[in-house]
Amino acid sequence: MRNHRSLVPSERDAVAGNGLVDRRLFLGATAAAAALSGALPSRAGELPIEPWMKLPGSGFVGYGQPSKFESKVARTFASLPGTTGTGAARTPHHLLDGMITPNGVHFERSHSGIPDINPETHRLLIHGLVERPLIFTLENLERYPRESRVAFLECGGNGQLLYQKEPAPVGVQAIHGLVSCAEWTGVKLSVLLQEAGVDPKAKWILAEGADAAGMSRSIPLAKAMDDALVALYQNGERVRPSNGYPMRLLLPGYEGNMNVKWLRRIKLTESPMMTKDETSKYTIILPDGKSLQFVFPQEGKSVITQPSPGLTMKESGLYEISGLAWSGYGKITKVEVSADGGKSWARAALQPPVLSKALTRFRIPWRWNGGPALLQSRATDESGYVQPTREKMIAARGNRAIYHSNAITTWAISDKGEVTHVYT
Amino acid sequence: MRNHRSLVPSERDAVAGNGLVDRRLFLGATAAAAALSGALPSRAGELPIEPWMKLPGSGFVGYGQPSKFESKVARTFASLPGTTGTGAARTPHHLLDGMITPNGVHFERSHSGIPDINPETHRLLIHGLVERPLIFTLENLERYPRESRVAFLECGGNGQLLYQKEPAPVGVQAIHGLVSCAEWTGVKLSVLLQEAGVDPKAKWILAEGADAAGMSRSIPLAKAMDDALVALYQNGERVRPSNGYPMRLLLPGYEGNMNVKWLRRIKLTESPMMTKDETSKYTIILPDGKSLQFVFPQEGKSVITQPSPGLTMKESGLYEISGLAWSGYGKITKVEVSADGGKSWARAALQPPVLSKALTRFRIPWRWNGGPALLQSRATDESGYVQPTREKMIAARGNRAIYHSNAITTWAISDKGEVTHVYT
Repeated sequence: MRNHRSLVPSERDAVAGNGLVDRRLFLGATAAAAALSGALPSRAGELPIEPWMKLPGSGFVGYGQPSKFESKVARTFASLPGTTGTGAARTPHHLLDGMITPNGVHFERSHSGIPDINPETHRLLIHGLVERPLIFTLENLERYPRESRVAFLECGGNGQLLYQKEPAPVGVQAIHGLVSCAEWTGVKLSVLLQEAGVDPKAKWILAEGADAAGMSRSIPLAKAMDDALVALYQNGERVRPSNGYPMRLLLPGYEGNMNVKWLRRIKLTESPMMTKDETSKYTIILPDGKSLQFVFPQEGKSVITQPSPGLTMKESGLYEISGLAWSGYGKITKVEVSADGGKSWARAALQPPVLSKALTRFRIPWRWNGGPALLQSRATDESGYVQPTREKMIAARGNRAIYHSNAITTWAISDKGEVTHVYT
Repeated sequence: MRNHRSLVPSERDAVAGNGLVDRRLFLGATAAAAALSGALPSRAGELPIEPWMKLPGSGFVGYGQPSKFESKVARTFASLPGTTGTGAARTPHHLLDGMITPNGVHFERSHSGIPDINPETHRLLIHGLVERPLIFTLENLERYPRESRVAFLECGGNGQLLYQKEPAPVGVQAIHGLVSCAEWTGVKLSVLLQEAGVDPKAKWILAEGADAAGMSRSIPLAKAMDDALVALYQNGERVRPSNGYPMRLLLPGYEGNMNVKWLRRIKLTESPMMTKDETSKYTIILPDGKSLQFVFPQEGKSVITQPSPGLTMKESGLYEISGLAWSGYGKITKVEVSADGGKSWARAALQPPVLSKALTRFRIPWRWNGGPALLQSRATDESGYVQPTREKMIAARGNRAIYHSNAITTWAISDKGEVTHVYT
């Protein structure tokens, strides 16, 4: 084995300014080089017998929960005044790792709370420009072939704080907590539409939810016939009530609210229906006052989750910078990280499997010298699209936009190790 | 679009006896052929407004739960008389879909209950044949590089009911509920061992848990240096208490109990330590009375989860047969399904991504003619190993064995649509 001193990365491992270290140190074959300085763990010969080793532990339960010590791993949420559940709940990405978001903290955006749906009486109607309108019970749908896919969902309004003129003094959960990722399983919508018989005049579908808002969106028929799922399962178990129980539409890569929850009705139409949430909301106001409508896929994006605001760095030395990247246009092909506010960039390692339209975890080692640093990440997707700087996004969109914010986020590290949100 | 009648699969789609239909009908490009007879959903023009659409739904919560209508999606469990939590809790695979097992129902095998560990005071000691014994706090480990991988865990005793002379009148949860799959994230054990400096004399490690059983196993150093993780996260959030909070060993593909939960100590040794759970337990008793010791990887295996006992089929027609396959030796390369008790076989579709040492979902369409059927699945892994029949396994192992049961399971369908466990 190599001796201890040799485990410390040397200056020649540097790949970009301000301490970024070759990603192969972490994911390469010679794990030795990935080790820290050795100063952290203490040297010792034995451990005390802790109280939980002295008595039998607790027994089994049918459905388990996280440790009581993890109560901070929770969504933060806010509702519009006077409403029940008209608002959003955000995923605490700074406290998670991996690509899967556990169901308990998957983000939620609801327009009139979570309906308490009885699956026995819930129905899905397919009608409009079809040969035969059909009503499906959950039991009917159980007979159909299923597919699974790992997919991210992102609210169209995620990241909107980056449109503000001053940097919001908050962290990844508040700024980017409206994106999550799960393994979804369900029936291909194309199979159900073909069962109903699609009229050649049909070019769009209207999807409507069974919540009190009757949340509805128009979706191009081409997407419905491509990779849309009527999702019944989320990370193995039935879709959670906050995510559309007993069934939701899944449109991989498309703006979150189009993935209609509590799906009750699909109507085939010649044209979009111009519902509330595709006219007065979820359009992109441009600097000239006009709006972009029907921007469906979420653009390529990334954010560093560790370190990020709320996590403090206590001493200089080697750290792992880790984060999430995703694109509604396919696979992430590259994530670059900067520790000097975008002056120099180094390529991060992507955690396999890298899946199309799913969250992708990236990692890169960083030797913090104890001084100020500006951390950024920049994603590239398989279409060749590169995540823009905030400056570039604001130049194109202005400051009045709300949706589809995908600019680079900057975390500043102070010489005290505090992490804050800043603009460069 | 094709007309409705053409959606019904024809006899020429048959790929094996008793109704098995070409898998491409389900996962192929022309989804039309996957449709059912059309008799199931009812034709109609409108839906009633259900009560949950008339009032705002419930508001947000920090950590969400499944629908109250899904209370049956729970682990079943049993403890040894007079003990707290010495026993096992089993995953309800007949009620799940996909490859990820949600954390709430991941299987659990505990030897003295679930310790209530305070992560602030928990420590991991690495000692024995090392240059420097080291003690890690959770905060220390946070500084190390992490990796994620989707991996199955299977108790060595899973499937042991198949060694019984008569078929147990139970289903997939009771027979095969001690296997689950999650995305695990943690620190490579090799990195920590190199930090401590491995003495060239070391050939094994002893891993010990912080439960009252002090559960411990010997593991070849080669495995520890290969793909072993000290897992901190399970499906994105901290490892659940029942699965080793705040850290467990993950040895992809190896017998479940070697993946020591509540990991507190790793000692490097020249030889295995012959602990209770690798001598009096977890060895395979052969027909001649001798025992196989140190059989580490779980062999290639599969089981049909839908249909399976507890699920009743109401009418003849097209169904999806779906199940899970896995191997401790790598990727699953093929799953074949039989509807006539092994006389003829058809290849099922494997749901991508197919990952090494992870659960793999397989699916194949089946046209049930309403008569008796015997459903089986047979997995092949990338080593070329083929899952054995029960007859072959009993010939090799006899009826006194308990562990590493990986024989083909048979579900009988009666002409009433009841599904039962049988031997062929």
